[in-house]
Amino acid sequence: MGKRAKGHHRSKKRRSSIGLPPGTLQVDPEAVATRVRVIQYSEHHVTSLEVADLATLPGLVSDTEVTWVDVVGLGDGDALARLGAMFHLHPLALEDVVNVHQRPKLEIYPHQLFMVTRLLALSERLETEQISIFLGPGFVLTFQEREGDCFEPLRDRIRTDRGRVRHSGADYLAYALLDAIVDSYFPVIEAFGDRLDDLEDDVLHGASEGIVERLMDVRRDLLMFRRYAWPMRDTVSALQRDDVQQISDETRIYLRDCHDHAVRVVDLAENFRDLGTSLMEVHLSVSSQRLNEVMKVLTMIATIFMPLGFIAGVYGMNFDSDASRWNMPELHWRFGYPFALGMMATFAGGFLYFFWRKGWFRDP
Amino acid sequence: MGKRAKGHHRSKKRRSSIGLPPGTLQVDPEAVATRVRVIQYSEHHVTSLEVADLATLPGLVSDTEVTWVDVVGLGDGDALARLGAMFHLHPLALEDVVNVHQRPKLEIYPHQLFMVTRLLALSERLETEQISIFLGPGFVLTFQEREGDCFEPLRDRIRTDRGRVRHSGADYLAYALLDAIVDSYFPVIEAFGDRLDDLEDDVLHGASEGIVERLMDVRRDLLMFRRYAWPMRDTVSALQRDDVQQISDETRIYLRDCHDHAVRVVDLAENFRDLGTSLMEVHLSVSSQRLNEVMKVLTMIATIFMPLGFIAGVYGMNFDSDASRWNMPELHWRFGYPFALGMMATFAGGFLYFFWRKGWFRDP
Amino acid sequence: MGKRAKGHHRSKKRRSSIGLPPGTLQVDPEAVATRVRVIQYSEHHVTSLEVADLATLPGLVSDTEVTWVDVVGLGDGDALARLGAMFHLHPLALEDVVNVHQRPKLEIYPHQLFMVTRLLALSERLETEQISIFLGPGFVLTFQEREGDCFEPLRDRIRTDRGRVRHSGADYLAYALLDAIVDSYFPVIEAFGDRLDDLEDDVLHGASEGIVERLMDVRRDLLMFRRYAWPMRDTVSALQRDDVQQISDETRIYLRDCHDHAVRVVDLAENFRDLGTSLMEVHLSVSSQRLNEVMKVLTMIATIFMPLGFIAGVYGMNFDSDASRWNMPELHWRFGYPFALGMMATFAGGFLYFFWRKGWFRDP
Amino acid sequence: MGKRAKGHHRSKKRRSSIGLPPGTLQVDPEAVATRVRVIQYSEHHVTSLEVADLATLPGLVSDTEVTWVDVVGLGDGDALARLGAMFHLHPLALEDVVNVHQRPKLEIYPHQLFMVTRLLALSERLETEQISIFLGPGFVLTFQEREGDCFEPLRDRIRTDRGRVRHSGADYLAYALLDAIVDSYFPVIEAFGDRLDDLEDDVLHGASEGIVERLMDVRRDLLMFRRYAWPMRDTVSALQRDDVQQISDETRIYLRDCHDHAVRVVDLAENFRDLGTSLMEVHLSVSSQRLNEVMKVLTMIATIFMPLGFIAGVYGMNFDSDASRWNMPELHWRFGYPFALGMMATFAGGFLYFFWRKGWFRDP
Amino acid sequence: MGKRAKGHHRSKKRRSSIGLPPGTLQVDPEAVATRVRVIQYSEHHVTSLEVADLATLPGLVSDTEVTWVDVVGLGDGDALARLGAMFHLHPLALEDVVNVHQRPKLEIYPHQLFMVTRLLALSERLETEQISIFLGPGFVLTFQEREGDCFEPLRDRIRTDRGRVRHSGADYLAYALLDAIVDSYFPVIEAFGDRLDDLEDDVLHGASEGIVERLMDVRRDLLMFRRYAWPMRDTVSALQRDDVQQISDETRIYLRDCHDHAVRVVDLAENFRDLGTSLMEVHLSVSSQRLNEVMKVLTMIATIFMPLGFIAGVYGMNFDSDASRWNMPELHWRFGYPFALGMMATFAGGFLYFFWRKGWFRDP
Repeated sequence: MGKRAKGHHRSKKRRSSIGLPPGTLQVDPEAVATRVRVIQYSEHHVTSLEVADLATLPGLVSDTEVTWVDVVGLGDGDALARLGAMFHLHPLALEDVVNVHQRPKLEIYPHQLFMVTRLLALSERLETEQISIFLGPGFVLTFQEREGDCFEPLRDRIRTDRGRVRHSGADYLAYALLDAIVDSYFPVIEAFGDRLDDLEDDVLHGASEGIVERLMDVRRDLLMFRRYAWPMRDTVSALQRDDVQQISDETRIYLRDCHDHAVRVVDLAENFRDLGTSLMEVHLSVSSQRLNEVMKVLTMIATIFMPLGFIAGVYGMNFDSDASRWNMPELHWRFGYPFALGMMATFAGGFLYFFWRKGWFRDP
Repeated sequence: MGKRAKGHHRSKKRRSSIGLPPGTLQVDPEAVATRVRVIQYSEHHVTSLEVADLATLPGLVSDTEVTWVDVVGLGDGDALARLGAMFHLHPLALEDVVNVHQRPKLEIYPHQLFMVTRLLALSERLETEQISIFLGPGFVLTFQEREGDCFEPLRDRIRTDRGRVRHSGADYLAYALLDAIVDSYFPVIEAFGDRLDDLEDDVLHGASEGIVERLMDVRRDLLMFRRYAWPMRDTVSALQRDDVQQISDETRIYLRDCHDHAVRVVDLAENFRDLGTSLMEVHLSVSSQRLNEVMKVLTMIATIFMPLGFIAGVYGMNFDSDASRWNMPELHWRFGYPFALGMMATFAGGFLYFFWRKGWFRDP
Repeated sequence: MGKRAKGHHRSKKRRSSIGLPPGTLQVDPEAVATRVRVIQYSEHHVTSLEVADLATLPGLVSDTEVTWVDVVGLGDGDALARLGAMFHLHPLALEDVVNVHQRPKLEIYPHQLFMVTRLLALSERLETEQISIFLGPGFVLTFQEREGDCFEPLRDRIRTDRGRVRHSGADYLAYALLDAIVDSYFPVIEAFGDRLDDLEDDVLHGASEGIVERLMDVRRDLLMFRRYAWPMRDTVSALQRDDVQQISDETRIYLRDCHDHAVRVVDLAENFRDLGTSLMEVHLSVSSQRLNEVMKVLTMIATIFMPLGFIAGVYGMNFDSDASRWNMPELHWRFGYPFALGMMATFAGGFLYFFWRKGWFRDP
Repeated sequence: MGKRAKGHHRSKKRRSSIGLPPGTLQVDPEAVATRVRVIQYSEHHVTSLEVADLATLPGLVSDTEVTWVDVVGLGDGDALARLGAMFHLHPLALEDVVNVHQRPKLEIYPHQLFMVTRLLALSERLETEQISIFLGPGFVLTFQEREGDCFEPLRDRIRTDRGRVRHSGADYLAYALLDAIVDSYFPVIEAFGDRLDDLEDDVLHGASEGIVERLMDVRRDLLMFRRYAWPMRDTVSALQRDDVQQISDETRIYLRDCHDHAVRVVDLAENFRDLGTSLMEVHLSVSSQRLNEVMKVLTMIATIFMPLGFIAGVYGMNFDSDASRWNMPELHWRFGYPFALGMMATFAGGFLYFFWRKGWFRDP
Repeated sequence: MGKRAKGHHRSKKRRSSIGLPPGTLQVDPEAVATRVRVIQYSEHHVTSLEVADLATLPGLVSDTEVTWVDVVGLGDGDALARLGAMFHLHPLALEDVVNVHQRPKLEIYPHQLFMVTRLLALSERLETEQISIFLGPGFVLTFQEREGDCFEPLRDRIRTDRGRVRHSGADYLAYALLDAIVDSYFPVIEAFGDRLDDLEDDVLHGASEGIVERLMDVRRDLLMFRRYAWPMRDTVSALQRDDVQQISDETRIYLRDCHDHAVRVVDLAENFRDLGTSLMEVHLSVSSQRLNEVMKVLTMIATIFMPLGFIAGVYGMNFDSDASRWNMPELHWRFGYPFALGMMATFAGGFLYFFWRKGWFRDP
């Protein structure tokens, strides 16, 4: 019930701004309130603050430091509009930030790169969150739908100066964000693998309660996973192209690594999709095999007992043996009853032999 | 019945002008009468009028304003021919306007762009309407099959000067029309999603009445949807190419956004098609599972009662126990009847244990 | 029977000239006798004649008029060879004309274009006829397998000077021929649509007599249709390329239109193929659903009557109630018989309630 | 049995030289002994001889004549090595000649073209033979696995000077060999068509003995056929490319023809593969339809006779009608027996009417 | 059980370094301890030694000899880091060496080529081992997960100076390693072929015990095989490109040969995948055919014995023939019993004839 209800919900509100002029900022009334956090770092120095007054933001961006403005919650339309104006974001890009049903993509604006990416998490069903990333000179601007992300280890590396991030520019930070997102797909795809393994076990051991339902859920989720993972891979791939000037050559090598991971994820998703499809066939096959078993039992029982019952029926007939000596003389034979039982045993034995010959006992 | 009849109708009249010279204007006798409405606007000024005398039309097109000539109803061949002559439309393009079974496409003529697009609406079945758009210098000319379209919000934005449309050229108007059409696909695709959700519910809960029929209808409609959505996407994509000189760079950015939407629509349509296909498998699987259940009930009943009935049959035989002491002595035992009933109970219990061991009670 | 025989025939004689030198003209002995008809026209003037003496042919080709030499029947090897020599046809092209199992294709020779095209007609099964078209300077040469084609309306247009054909060159004539052929595919594809509609009706209403046979026939024919329609589309597409110098720019616009039609045909064929495939699944699904119905009836009958029969059997046993009071005392009860009937009714009612609970009556 | 054994054999020895240095000539011990036949021809003159002493070979190649060295049997490693040295064959190419599991391919060496091709023959199962062709200046060198090929008609044409072969260079000879090989695919593909026609007949008429086995064999063989036909087509296609200098422009036109044939073969193979796949579905469908028939018979019989048997059982009960007037008074009615028979007839008639209403008699 | 457990395990730990900075070397705690073996050779001279002190390694690389440093076991993080520093390996490349779940790939660094390859071995299930290869000027560096590889024959050829390896540079050695890996795929693919042959036999002969399980295992393994074989082929293909300067022209010809083998492997894997898929259909088909057989037996038995039993039941009724002459007069006929038996025989014969007409005996 709950699941189906979710199913319905999923197909709703894919585009709420139909009929409005393109570039209109229409905030989802259910969106989370907006908070802005800034991390600013150079090789020698890190500051991290929560910004209350947006007006102070532009002053923060400097030539010598990398500024990461992390906006969480898309519920405050005014704040978003002011951020858009401050950082010269294109209205269409800002609309895409708010309308959280975009496919991952890279858009190249004269002085900025705009990337739409997507976090994927598998709890009972697949859940997704859109993360929009702007890369401009000296700053990275990220928009998240809600609290909780996969960037905590990265923030840690910035704070504690591990890895290259403190020693590189804003493009490396953007790469590191992408890498964190792509890497967060691996646990999800592994969870899919585990679910399919469990389903396969259940299918092969003949469980049938709810199997088809679970299989359909996994297939649906894999379809959705794939729908986001493919363009995610293409986005990373597009970033590597030579004509993207905001990315330095050194970061490009790291992007190649991130692209490898994205390829692997897509690859595994395809494999799992294949497995999901074949599991339905397996289920049908196992189910038809079980039917065979059931029918064999029925057929054996019926084949043995129907003739026996018939014989019993014959000798239960009430023909008057006094009327003529042709009428059921067996009834008065000395060994009439043993004879009848013997005939029955012979029949039963014959049929059992017939079944044994057909191999029905071997694979029941 | 009604639906099938529609099915037949759908495959009729796909091309009625076979044998005529190409470029012949052959009006469908069932087409709606033609009405011409004109909206003319600049940054400071809007007029909207219904044109009775076509001869006044060409005078309307001016250098300083954008003129949108909206032709509704393709029933008046003369009027269409005169419009064609006035706006220098190519005869083949005009033929495509009238012959409303075109796939969406972009054709580039020296001074004009000609786009065939298609509105899609899902009532009981998918219904479509061809909308042809000519973009020339300073004017946009649209041809619709009948009243009722998805452009009302756009007309509103022109009238009330919301968004960019009043401040841009005819190319932006053409984009806005395309965008309105593509956006109108979202409710349709969502409706498909809902139908598939409903069908999935029904399939999984084992309803069978008319399921296959409904599933086939959805698959057919999705096939048709896809048949129009794909070339629609390609049309938007082709418009973005550098060599289309009628489109300004600024509008091109907006087209990129429209293209994103078209890609998303196609994407969802593909997903839904996949789901539709797998639902048929699910249906087969559920159906075979139910057969198993039914057969288990039958087999259990038969397996239990056949041997019991056989025993009863044996003791219903009429062998003459007076003839010899071998003939059915059980009949005269003191506890013959309880003995027989006990044997029956033992058999029944044995079979029940056998079924329980086989797990037939667990997943019935 | 007849159909199968045709099936066998279809796969015969696909290439009869194996082992012969390439370019050898080997006439099929069953081919129709050759007739040559010439239509010659300019803007002001048309003549149409049947040529008896081939020697007069070359004189007919002139600079100011377009000459259409229409050869019907490929049975006269000598005549074909002489035609080949007169019009400087490449031996391989001429071989392809005679060997009527070519796929549609365009071949560019220095001074000529050679097109293989194919007429498709759907009577009981799909039937095809190869039409070869040579386009040279000022003339078009067509080879047809037999009388009867789709060019009559075109001949009419030439005779009565309707459309552009009389005012254009030989390239337009070649286009008009191609257009006539492609347009003749529409009735065929519509007929496929009707057949599939009928089949769907029959499948869904559970008819099974010969369904699979008819479905296979449609799928086979669609496969064949597609096998010719795809390369036909590619042929038209190849003709539009810039490097085909025999085609004028103006005709190229018309070819674009023809290409659109070809694309639509291929598109519909793909859709119908999809439907054909899913119909087989539907058939299986419907068939399994009907099996469920049948088995439910059987199971209900057996489940109700087996226990009843068993009870009747018990009270038909002949235990000697005189021998002890344990032996079937019910037989002598005052209400023994009503008691037995009541027990039977209780059982039957219980099972009916069980079936009703299981929902077996709802969707029978 | 034999077939399966062959199946096993097929997957053996795909590459026997694992671990050896690349370019090592490792002769299959089961290969046929080597024979070398030479045909040498110019426009005016042909000689044909069997070469015993390989040392005389190089002297044979001349500037004015075309020399075709045809090596049959790959069993004599020394002879092959000497041939390799004489004609400057690359060691890797020679290894490919001996290791007869190559896919068809074209390799371009500085002064030679090396083609691997494959003869296909359909006896009980598909059998293949690798034919390697070297084209050098003035000579063609072919290696065949065993006696018997499809080149006899070509040799005939050389001997009797039919066609262009005697008037063209070595490149035409190479083309003629390829053409002969590709043309030899047509009877094979036709045989596949016939087998599928037969199988379809058998499937539709409900034969089941060994059907699945035969179907699997055909599908396997088609898979193998396709595995060789595809790269064969690509090989011919690659030969046509402009950068292959060993091929003259004139021969290139002939190769285009050969390419057409290869395309047609691949096309038909794809179609047949499609048919093979759908035949399995048809088989399943027919099989499920037959099950329905069988079950209807069973259900009708059971539904009619179970209630009748029950009635008979009731009146076979031994309730003591002397004990009370409630105990089976029917037994003593005047028309008790006819009444019972009538009740039975009524039941039977009722069920027959029910079945007739359900349409079970229409499509049995 | 064990297998399933393995299944679960397989999907674990695909990427353990999530959250760590890219390029971090995180050694798997279960990895094998590291051993370093060096083979150094020129045309005239070979040395082979096991290196204990890594510091001596760099001195080994010389201009005149080829040095092959073979690192087995990835358990010693320090040693690997030192090796990375010595040979100037990029940190990302070194991370890929340790994280053994990479897809095969080629990465081009300024002075080095880095290849990830994969050994595949089929014991009970498919097992894989990642082998990383660095090709630098004068040296090849390989990293293996554990002892045991397919390079022993190559080492032999180096020691005994067979083949070209001693006479070529480091690029030839890298090629030889790749070639050995690709060639080691052939026995694996052959084993797949054998398994499928066995499975086909079992499926066709109707075995059902564990068939679906085994089929799923083979399909899974083939999926995995394919997942590594495809990029392996692409890696070899990428190495052949002109812009890979580390590869000499001569080696490139050998790589072409290796590429051919990789193509053949992928080809066979695709074929086997196809067969695996169709085997599931065959299984379903065979299973449904067997059900038909079983049901025919049941139906025949029931159809024959139910009417017979009914007749017996009728004459077992206790209607009082004394009460009237309408009550079961047959019981007192002279030939009542033979008459009843005759009626039974007639019924049985009639049904047998009916079944024979329906062809149920022909294909049982």
